[in-house]
Amino acid sequence: MKFGLDVLGGDFAPGSTIDGAIAALDSIGKDDRIVLLGPEDLIRKSLAERGVDAERFEISHQPECIEMDEKPMKALMEKPRSGIAAGLRMLAAGELDSFASAGNSGAVLAGAVTLVKCLPGVLRPCTCAWVPQEDSDTFSLLLDIGTTPDAKPEVMLQFGVIGSIYSRHVLGRENPRVCLMNVGTEDGKGNLQCQASFPLLKECPHVNFVGNLEPRDLFKGKAEVFVADGFVGNILLKEIETFYRMLQKRGIKDPLFERCNYEIYGGSPILGVGAPVMLGHGISSALAIKNILLQSKRMCEQHLVDVLREVFASYVGGTGTV
Amino acid sequence: MKFGLDVLGGDFAPGSTIDGAIAALDSIGKDDRIVLLGPEDLIRKSLAERGVDAERFEISHQPECIEMDEKPMKALMEKPRSGIAAGLRMLAAGELDSFASAGNSGAVLAGAVTLVKCLPGVLRPCTCAWVPQEDSDTFSLLLDIGTTPDAKPEVMLQFGVIGSIYSRHVLGRENPRVCLMNVGTEDGKGNLQCQASFPLLKECPHVNFVGNLEPRDLFKGKAEVFVADGFVGNILLKEIETFYRMLQKRGIKDPLFERCNYEIYGGSPILGVGAPVMLGHGISSALAIKNILLQSKRMCEQHLVDVLREVFASYVGGTGTV
Repeated sequence: MKFGLDVLGGDFAPGSTIDGAIAALDSIGKDDRIVLLGPEDLIRKSLAERGVDAERFEISHQPECIEMDEKPMKALMEKPRSGIAAGLRMLAAGELDSFASAGNSGAVLAGAVTLVKCLPGVLRPCTCAWVPQEDSDTFSLLLDIGTTPDAKPEVMLQFGVIGSIYSRHVLGRENPRVCLMNVGTEDGKGNLQCQASFPLLKECPHVNFVGNLEPRDLFKGKAEVFVADGFVGNILLKEIETFYRMLQKRGIKDPLFERCNYEIYGGSPILGVGAPVMLGHGISSALAIKNILLQSKRMCEQHLVDVLREVFASYVGGTGTV
Repeated sequence: MKFGLDVLGGDFAPGSTIDGAIAALDSIGKDDRIVLLGPEDLIRKSLAERGVDAERFEISHQPECIEMDEKPMKALMEKPRSGIAAGLRMLAAGELDSFASAGNSGAVLAGAVTLVKCLPGVLRPCTCAWVPQEDSDTFSLLLDIGTTPDAKPEVMLQFGVIGSIYSRHVLGRENPRVCLMNVGTEDGKGNLQCQASFPLLKECPHVNFVGNLEPRDLFKGKAEVFVADGFVGNILLKEIETFYRMLQKRGIKDPLFERCNYEIYGGSPILGVGAPVMLGHGISSALAIKNILLQSKRMCEQHLVDVLREVFASYVGGTGTV
């Protein structure tokens, strides 16, 4: 398989991306290749500096770069030879099996939707974060974490379906329990959006819905999938990251909170589009880049996109269970 | 002044409320009285058991009790001699200067709105939480934390105005900076609600608006007032509490996180109604009850409700600054 990586994507690129790609080499299969997309000279020089044979990678020369503050659609149009634009084009054409970037996330998202396109039946894509559990070494899933800030109830329902499939295939959880992130556990709690999403989730044969849960339950093993809109999910994720960083800054070490570190999974796929597009954190380290590459490998091996395609193809009026 | 307290309100009542009232005695003025609302026998017995002279309090015999799981309006109607119904009636009639309850919060809120009533001009009441700051011993304010889960932009604006006044008069912050709790700091960020609320806050002469901030800024001294709707604010508060409790459970002590303890302020006033109605946490301890009583004293001394009344009376088209 071929895993594409945007070499210039991220605040610490290309150091972080080159180091991350090198670190991933030993964990990908013999027949797998990491395709480095970026300026060839720079890539060859960076690899040589690290004493790594460039032959261990494929290099796709892309001399342009979409900066962090550029307008997504405009940048994609004007810089077709950037890592992001080229990588997504190659992914859509089947020349790559996955593509990962820690660069301009708006551009990656816009490119994923316009070039790779949503799967038939999927209303809006979503992204997810892993949340460590207090009493086990597993992770639960929080989604959406920012892709769709205003999500209609039908979209919230789809997040539940998508999260359930991801939880099973990427995190290996059997029959994942899906809940609505809410401010109370009783039926009927929450804002209008939650109240309208609840019955849709409850009646859906594709999810094992366990009702409303609260932030306090996020770490408690009460559900494998927490559904929120992209605004609430992002607020929650940013607060988890805030606590993680405050604890670090204050020199407090604790195994549970260490696992709040996004580097463990490296970033999120844009779920619901027609191929594995991986979105890294802007501050991605080499470890995060390594792990996002390994996550894309796992997604490819598990044929996650094909599973999603199949479910959503028969989604309207579908009676099968995921 | 007379500060009413619902003796049967809270998971640990009446022990917590009686102990809290006793603890507050030394900090209220010589001419101030705490009015204990509840079954007189029980109150006298509890005070006697603790060796405290009942003469130090006023007792208002209210034999009924609204339980935690009762429907608010129905319970208020059917139990006029509960601490909550009677206390709010007495407050509305001017027989009390404030009323506090850690009981059924839906009933306290419904009673506050129907008996005490919103101030003219106030669209929806709100509640607030104190958030400790990393680099000082001050607190910023987060509001709303649950009273109004779905807040229109005009309501979000009013939360900013109300929070600004509370921050100044209760927390002693001069010219408090008000921000919108958002998922990014750039103008135009966020969900539709934030996008629509931003220009209203920006143009309002009653608030010192500093734009969008993120969860990471909550503890950083970047603003004194964080505006969110009641759903997002409650989610944030519950996550802070979750971290606080997880740290406690794991034996991690840290001065900053200790100050995330709600007991420090004890609870929130229902801001925007015509008299100080204080809403305690269901799990209120004696310390929380003491501090909510002292907070109500501070509100009365600062004439917070009168200030709010005056601002909102001239609010439509008003040009004064708060």
